[in-house]
Amino acid sequence: MLKLHHHPMSAASRFVRIVLAEYGERVELFEEKPWERRREFLALNPAATLPVMIEDAGPPIVGGIVSGEYLDETRGAFQRDKRLMPDKPIERVEARRLTEWFLGKMDGEVTRYLVKERVFKLDMAPAEGGGPPDASAIRAARANLKHHLRYVAWLAESRDWLAGPRLSYADLAAAASLSILDYLGEIAWENEPAAKEWYMRLKSRPSFRPLLTERVRGVAPAGHYAELDF
Amino acid sequence: MLKLHHHPMSAASRFVRIVLAEYGERVELFEEKPWERRREFLALNPAATLPVMIEDAGPPIVGGIVSGEYLDETRGAFQRDKRLMPDKPIERVEARRLTEWFLGKMDGEVTRYLVKERVFKLDMAPAEGGGPPDASAIRAARANLKHHLRYVAWLAESRDWLAGPRLSYADLAAAASLSILDYLGEIAWENEPAAKEWYMRLKSRPSFRPLLTERVRGVAPAGHYAELDF
Repeated sequence: MLKLHHHPMSAASRFVRIVLAEYGERVELFEEKPWERRREFLALNPAATLPVMIEDAGPPIVGGIVSGEYLDETRGAFQRDKRLMPDKPIERVEARRLTEWFLGKMDGEVTRYLVKERVFKLDMAPAEGGGPPDASAIRAARANLKHHLRYVAWLAESRDWLAGPRLSYADLAAAASLSILDYLGEIAWENEPAAKEWYMRLKSRPSFRPLLTERVRGVAPAGHYAELDF
Repeated sequence: MLKLHHHPMSAASRFVRIVLAEYGERVELFEEKPWERRREFLALNPAATLPVMIEDAGPPIVGGIVSGEYLDETRGAFQRDKRLMPDKPIERVEARRLTEWFLGKMDGEVTRYLVKERVFKLDMAPAEGGGPPDASAIRAARANLKHHLRYVAWLAESRDWLAGPRLSYADLAAAASLSILDYLGEIAWENEPAAKEWYMRLKSRPSFRPLLTERVRGVAPAGHYAELDF
């Protein structure tokens, strides 16, 4: 069976869990606190980032994008119209660009900051970077979030799904990120109805259910977090 | 013909140029200064990152990793033993991990900082972020570089090529990054002989030649930069 070292507040971890669920794969989950820099975890991934996936006794499959490519090659490519990547190379370009956008750019500008300041710091020792939240980091991340949410809405207004006519990794990467921010009550859905309508479609998928029932110690989710019609 | 919006001091741009040269593809180059945020360029790539590749009248292919995947699917997959990605999905995992390491992690911790402080700032207006170099950013990037160079040396000591027995994207991504730092005279090769031996092998490849003769306005390369036996 597949093993996944993950954290519930890591967007790339959520992305891989949703992909696995969409493909009907069972996975054994191991929660990892990356800031602890456990020796066994660093041996799997010297970059100390999440997730890390392992199939059988194979080498570590590091990160959301690399895991996504591996799952596309070993599962998706055989799924016909349920494949989560478009069929043509030039169409895959847009799905990959947006997956990188949400797991890379948006993570670095929004998600990672808010999670660190509002969640991880509660659990970190002072030597690990713990302490009171940095208000200016939170403010900057919230300002950036507005632009990213606008971008999701614009994509959702222009296309059936974010990367084109079919559900793809781009939707799952965006929804993985936004679901974390939604848990934290950071999203002003009322400002972007097209993004909200798109997210409701994602949220109702069975692959999303386990994420919606999961709770992070010390941080209660926003009231509407698990509601499918919010 | 392929078009590439690039900058000579962008590691991901160099990576794509080397891949194209390895596959014998001709490409028309357009130098882009990303900090100028040209409207036409932002329309191609709202993230304003380099490179952006265009094939025929197709949609923009954004970034080193996405361009690399596209070229693997449309060129590499048909190259038999000259393919720059391993044949098996589980082996491609390591090549992808390292490509991301050098174009993502190392770029964000070393290359991009040194290039910004030592090259781009010479050319930037004050409103664009120009001004004197930030000594503490340079110091931090140089400290990080030591670890990355050690990692390259360790990989080169343990394997024939960085990701395994064959030349792959991992080598080209690492060499693309290191060639920029070498131009700037930032690399203490004498401390890491295994990294140096590996880099000499890369540097002697015909695909590297155009990079070694290119000069950046206002910044002379280190004396040994273009020498194959340095």
